[in-house]
Amino acid sequence: MQKPTCTGALPADLAFDVFARTCPSRETLEHVTGRWGSLTVGALREGPCRFNELRRRVEGVSEKMLSQTLHALERDGIVHREAQPTNPPRVDYELTPLGCEVADRLLALIHFVEGSMAEVIASRESYDAARGGR
Amino acid sequence: MQKPTCTGALPADLAFDVFARTCPSRETLEHVTGRWGSLTVGALREGPCRFNELRRRVEGVSEKMLSQTLHALERDGIVHREAQPTNPPRVDYELTPLGCEVADRLLALIHFVEGSMAEVIASRESYDAARGGR
Repeated sequence: MQKPTCTGALPADLAFDVFARTCPSRETLEHVTGRWGSLTVGALREGPCRFNELRRRVEGVSEKMLSQTLHALERDGIVHREAQPTNPPRVDYELTPLGCEVADRLLALIHFVEGSMAEVIASRESYDAARGGR
Repeated sequence: MQKPTCTGALPADLAFDVFARTCPSRETLEHVTGRWGSLTVGALREGPCRFNELRRRVEGVSEKMLSQTLHALERDGIVHREAQPTNPPRVDYELTPLGCEVADRLLALIHFVEGSMAEVIASRESYDAARGGR
């Protein structure tokens, strides 16, 4: 399931395909676009952040879900975890250079969605009205 | 929960905030970035598509999940559903102009992730090796 696609002589962006069920790129896309992954990556674009700061910024996330999200993103090389040798230990999370590139594309999408909400809400209202309201 | 944020005199892109728990933009972001939403929107960027064609393109999606995904995207004004008055009826799905704009930003992210998979896989291997393999 998780084996990389054979790259052969193909350029890297043709060798992986999120539409293929077993391509590992599908899992990474889910990590960065998932409910909490997208907000975590977006929030970290503002700079390094401690766990509890991040939890406040990503409103509604539980401790467990934020922890799982950060581990998956760290494993994929999107987030770097830096434990300071202080007492008590201080742990900072920050985007890697790869993570910054991902975040910039994700934020372009997020800002576009935020800026389109008047149109989205109008569409929802007309959809619901055509179906007798709900 | 689903009330639009008060826009007042703010520009639209400042009035909605996906980081706020009750902002309706968070729900729309989830529709377009969710596991099946992102692949459905990406697939439809290639042109109008019938339900079963779409189901084949988005490998692994069930009939029920694709149907739910399309309804949510239609309600948000991202996808247009066109029923042809033929017998048997033929139904085409296509992106709206808003949906095309969303798809372009989403595909920029998808292609970047696909093109970064060599780096992601190397990161996973070193992460797992540092933890004794898993």
